[in-house]
Amino acid sequence: MQRIYFNEVVTRDGFQNEPAFVPTDVKVELIDALSNCGYSKIEVTSFTSAKAIPMLRDAEEVMGRIRRIPGVEYTVLVPNVRGAERALESHADEWNLVMSTSEAHNLSNLRMPREKSFSALKEVIELADGHVPINVSLSACFGCPMEGEVSQEEVLRWAERFVDLGVRGLTICDTTGMAHPSQVARMSHALRERFEQLQLTLHFHNTRGMGLANVVAAVDAGIDRFDASLGGLGGCPYAPGASGNITSEDAIHMLDVMGYDTGIDLIRLLPIARSLPDIVGHDVPGQIAKAGLITDLHPIPASVNELLKESA
Amino acid sequence: MQRIYFNEVVTRDGFQNEPAFVPTDVKVELIDALSNCGYSKIEVTSFTSAKAIPMLRDAEEVMGRIRRIPGVEYTVLVPNVRGAERALESHADEWNLVMSTSEAHNLSNLRMPREKSFSALKEVIELADGHVPINVSLSACFGCPMEGEVSQEEVLRWAERFVDLGVRGLTICDTTGMAHPSQVARMSHALRERFEQLQLTLHFHNTRGMGLANVVAAVDAGIDRFDASLGGLGGCPYAPGASGNITSEDAIHMLDVMGYDTGIDLIRLLPIARSLPDIVGHDVPGQIAKAGLITDLHPIPASVNELLKESA
Repeated sequence: MQRIYFNEVVTRDGFQNEPAFVPTDVKVELIDALSNCGYSKIEVTSFTSAKAIPMLRDAEEVMGRIRRIPGVEYTVLVPNVRGAERALESHADEWNLVMSTSEAHNLSNLRMPREKSFSALKEVIELADGHVPINVSLSACFGCPMEGEVSQEEVLRWAERFVDLGVRGLTICDTTGMAHPSQVARMSHALRERFEQLQLTLHFHNTRGMGLANVVAAVDAGIDRFDASLGGLGGCPYAPGASGNITSEDAIHMLDVMGYDTGIDLIRLLPIARSLPDIVGHDVPGQIAKAGLITDLHPIPASVNELLKESA
Repeated sequence: MQRIYFNEVVTRDGFQNEPAFVPTDVKVELIDALSNCGYSKIEVTSFTSAKAIPMLRDAEEVMGRIRRIPGVEYTVLVPNVRGAERALESHADEWNLVMSTSEAHNLSNLRMPREKSFSALKEVIELADGHVPINVSLSACFGCPMEGEVSQEEVLRWAERFVDLGVRGLTICDTTGMAHPSQVARMSHALRERFEQLQLTLHFHNTRGMGLANVVAAVDAGIDRFDASLGGLGGCPYAPGASGNITSEDAIHMLDVMGYDTGIDLIRLLPIARSLPDIVGHDVPGQIAKAGLITDLHPIPASVNELLKESA
């Protein structure tokens, strides 16, 4: 069975977009529960300024209190050198750096041109000095909600620049759900061809319903790592009411039934997914938490059973 | 560009599962609007007994009042000989007959064994006598929520029996959202191999989030006809809160951006999709009605524009 690896992003990418603060105790309990499900990586939190993202203002405390399990990497988002120092103190297993491949998107999200982001992240990579593995998440790689098309060559150019700095992994992000399966297949083939030695992760949103179709297209093209959020949290500010990240439990369930080895225990994961609406205080987009696994059969009603006996 | 054909099922499969009656005027107006969007087929209503499905008790009136457009086939669900007589009077362009490939599902839904359903539908086909094209929709072809697995051979066996009776088309239905892309690929190849001369349609539900991934798998295997419902209506009684049929506008949008020719004018269809929550009185699962097309760009905020000028 082919192995597929999942990075659970609910407590970072998911919670970051929530309107109400999730208490630190609840975050720690959730991460500890997720640690027992078989994820290869969990993006715990972000060392951004508490003013910029108040939802994640408890980053140090969360990192200090979670129980780390061997075999799971606990990664954190590191926006700059100040964040890197905090991540270092918290002994994060990996630093995840972020910038956008679209100038307007980078200016909009990070308030600086891409070149300035690149320089700032280069400093962070130098600070890591090979002691902490670096992953770079490139945003808006399948299109920018303001600029429109972002060419594959532009994405590969930025990827190449980070590879030259010695990063371990690259996450190619469809930040606002603009990717479609043909485009994903092309991008995945190109990434595999150029960066075969790297940890290549794809990050999809289900904003336009294509999330799981994109996962299949990527897997078919040889990609074996995905970001996903429990419950499908992480909606985009450009699309109120639309879905967020692809839903971890839905993506894992699909790949499981298709015969891939995700390493994840869905029977453990499902009750955690089902607790999420209580944690965030609203319904979430995930489907199998509502519908059950395809193997969850329903009892045959007594009246039908009678008919079955007659027809046998 | 490869052509993909859509059959819009919102007013039959969609409304049939709604709790509140949609007024006849609204149904007629909706179908007339849909007729102008480029669908190859619209499943207008069902000639079931008004007692069994009160939502569609206005079948004759709806069929009598819609404006039929050349190039669009107006099909109806015909459950039995009595329904066929009504469909004949209403001059339906096609009769869609339904039975399940799972005994428990057939008993549960139609209250009779599959053999009895087959005989009843055979009578209907004889009544059509080659004057009205017949489509047979086989339910639960990718799994039964009570029996579990339904083998591909079982599906093909029932399909074969109807083909022997001279039907024009077959719709292979994933009635409760249990299909996954690998299974769909296998089934699609088998169907194409055995029934190449037939109109082959696939009918997916998005109950477990795999709907559009299944469409791509089917298209990749040479299938070019799909059922879909505006807004993704048609939830399953076994999965409260879960999605229904695949969403027409989301499926069409995906295939459009992938470069297929769906023949459908999304710019016309989208406002109709956006009117659906008002018609049914609740939110619907469709995504692009909320998120917009991937080509719907957002204006660059003034502050970002300033930064863009500086960075240029």
